[in-house]
Amino acid sequence: MVSSPTPAAPALPLREDLRGEQPYGAPQLSVPVVLNVNENPYPVAPEIVADMADAVAAAAVGLNRYPDREFLDLRADLAAFLLRESGAELLPEQLWAANGSNEVMLHVLQAFGGPGRTALSFAPTYSMYPEYARDTLTDWVTGERRPAGSEDPFGVDPEHACSQIRHHRPSVVLLASPNNPTGTALPLSTVEAVLAEVAALPAGGVVVVDEAYGEFRREGVPSALQLLPQHPRLAVSRTMSKAFSLAGARLGYLAASREFVDALRIVRLPYHLSAVTQAVARTALRHSETLLARVDELRVRRDETVQWLRHNGFTVAESDANFVLFGEFDDRHAVWQGLLDRGVLIRETGPAGWLRVSIGTAEEMQSFRTALMEVVNEQ
Amino acid sequence: MVSSPTPAAPALPLREDLRGEQPYGAPQLSVPVVLNVNENPYPVAPEIVADMADAVAAAAVGLNRYPDREFLDLRADLAAFLLRESGAELLPEQLWAANGSNEVMLHVLQAFGGPGRTALSFAPTYSMYPEYARDTLTDWVTGERRPAGSEDPFGVDPEHACSQIRHHRPSVVLLASPNNPTGTALPLSTVEAVLAEVAALPAGGVVVVDEAYGEFRREGVPSALQLLPQHPRLAVSRTMSKAFSLAGARLGYLAASREFVDALRIVRLPYHLSAVTQAVARTALRHSETLLARVDELRVRRDETVQWLRHNGFTVAESDANFVLFGEFDDRHAVWQGLLDRGVLIRETGPAGWLRVSIGTAEEMQSFRTALMEVVNEQ
Repeated sequence: MVSSPTPAAPALPLREDLRGEQPYGAPQLSVPVVLNVNENPYPVAPEIVADMADAVAAAAVGLNRYPDREFLDLRADLAAFLLRESGAELLPEQLWAANGSNEVMLHVLQAFGGPGRTALSFAPTYSMYPEYARDTLTDWVTGERRPAGSEDPFGVDPEHACSQIRHHRPSVVLLASPNNPTGTALPLSTVEAVLAEVAALPAGGVVVVDEAYGEFRREGVPSALQLLPQHPRLAVSRTMSKAFSLAGARLGYLAASREFVDALRIVRLPYHLSAVTQAVARTALRHSETLLARVDELRVRRDETVQWLRHNGFTVAESDANFVLFGEFDDRHAVWQGLLDRGVLIRETGPAGWLRVSIGTAEEMQSFRTALMEVVNEQ
Repeated sequence: MVSSPTPAAPALPLREDLRGEQPYGAPQLSVPVVLNVNENPYPVAPEIVADMADAVAAAAVGLNRYPDREFLDLRADLAAFLLRESGAELLPEQLWAANGSNEVMLHVLQAFGGPGRTALSFAPTYSMYPEYARDTLTDWVTGERRPAGSEDPFGVDPEHACSQIRHHRPSVVLLASPNNPTGTALPLSTVEAVLAEVAALPAGGVVVVDEAYGEFRREGVPSALQLLPQHPRLAVSRTMSKAFSLAGARLGYLAASREFVDALRIVRLPYHLSAVTQAVARTALRHSETLLARVDELRVRRDETVQWLRHNGFTVAESDANFVLFGEFDDRHAVWQGLLDRGVLIRETGPAGWLRVSIGTAEEMQSFRTALMEVVNEQ
């Protein structure tokens, strides 16, 4: 018999700014069509699963020992992947990895943020950013992305960005590109303008371009990786959760100057990356061609989804990611609920009146389209 | 060709208190006999390795999806283990886990520490504690353990502990038991005195008893787990790194009141524990009897090592862990180096004049004894 005989607890001394907070996370609901957290709909192929099991078996023999704290083999494999994917020439020492981009970003804000310092981004953007700031006691401020109805919907105006930087003097600027939840990629000229303005601050600063969805960008859209050689203040973060179909394996990473990465090494907890995680990630990187083969298929389906939504009268943000933001609804919650009632879970996020749908399989998108038309025609 | 064309970097805005700091960690040297980081010398048995590979293969099929954020299955398995190991009756919701005890402790200090707050422990103790405090901007203070030459060497005097608590008003008290690097276990009466004093503070506080080495305690030495039902301010932390031979898998955990655990859920990064880590840990827990079978052997060898050292004229701290602190040396670094020159790596840590050796295999301990006598006889 298991019991919970805890007596009435006196209030524990939870940090004042955390009181009343709820754990972060999208609702975990069990429905047939899950299109709410930008997962890749394709499971890892059986031959890669078998290779992962073999790699874990090989690693498991040595699990009584601590893992390689510097994980330079994994970092070399990540550098080799970025060379193939974006032509970026990087040393292993310029790569960093952790248990998801979440932890990578925490390391960045632990190193360069903190009390009395400020992190700046441009809203609407990824809803975890303020959590990283809160966890590291960093002040969190946002400038604004361009309005939906402008010529560059949800883009970042470089002049506005620079004036925000001069005003707030952030030690960290976070630029999501492609942006979540809008799907918007930034031109490199905007990133360069931000880098120049940050470099001119009295205390300097760093800039992180968050390319979690970078592999899904459209033809001709560049990666900020190519700016790294000229910009020691820049980091470009990526993840294996999306394009690699590995959300469950928790492997986020970034590329930056050696000096930038060495700062993260100071704040990381020793042995943060398990030998098993390293083995699974290295196996996936060996199979990157197979794993990423379906990215093109998802990009095509993303573009088709955009077109279909527009054809049916919705407003749709341009997307370089594996999701699409669309609207505008007077009562978006009713639409979200109507879809859920039909077994289709999407995300109620982003600016008021908009909804975000992840790109799933062809069948899942058909279910989404059918459900959406039903919901809209009922209203 | 890989190049590193980073131009001369302007100093990056590293947090002021981190400047000049080095990444934490024992030297990673390649030597025949490694007895420096309290690893379990026994690899995971082949049949368990095979089960882990199967479990990872099963999990890998779903790796395109995010892992279970609440990992209640793993938490239930951990609760069941503590019931078997210590008779503790706990609900799954009273368990918490993360990537190593490091991350568990970070969560504790993120929730209950922070700027303007203080964490207290008693030195000499685990050298990572001040790192957790630094990472969370918590003030770090230490009282003192009793002197080596006292009746209770390296123990904690309850009166001293309570006076330190009244003086510093810590929101978090960390009590390592068995303590690293001394091996000292605390009587429950000391833990209870600390709990009572912390409860009497105007703002209250929490107490973590760190039982990373708890499974190695000697016959009759109790676990603080049995205090949990009466003490909602108490957490008892454990790890799978030592007794379970799983340092490479990074799975630390704690048991506490539901209210305590719910506070950690607020500060954890979502999906911090990968599906692969959960699968490996659950497999190990299914095989806990086999994995822990060698703990008794290590305890016997620990006791023999203590006796042998004493018999040969060394001063030795009583140990309830899988390591032994011994001395005293005028020049401990010379002894450490002499052992290393003979292929035996131990740890130069703890109070001046003392050294710490982990308990390895019978052969490894023989190498240690032979090398130590050579080094000492040379001096």
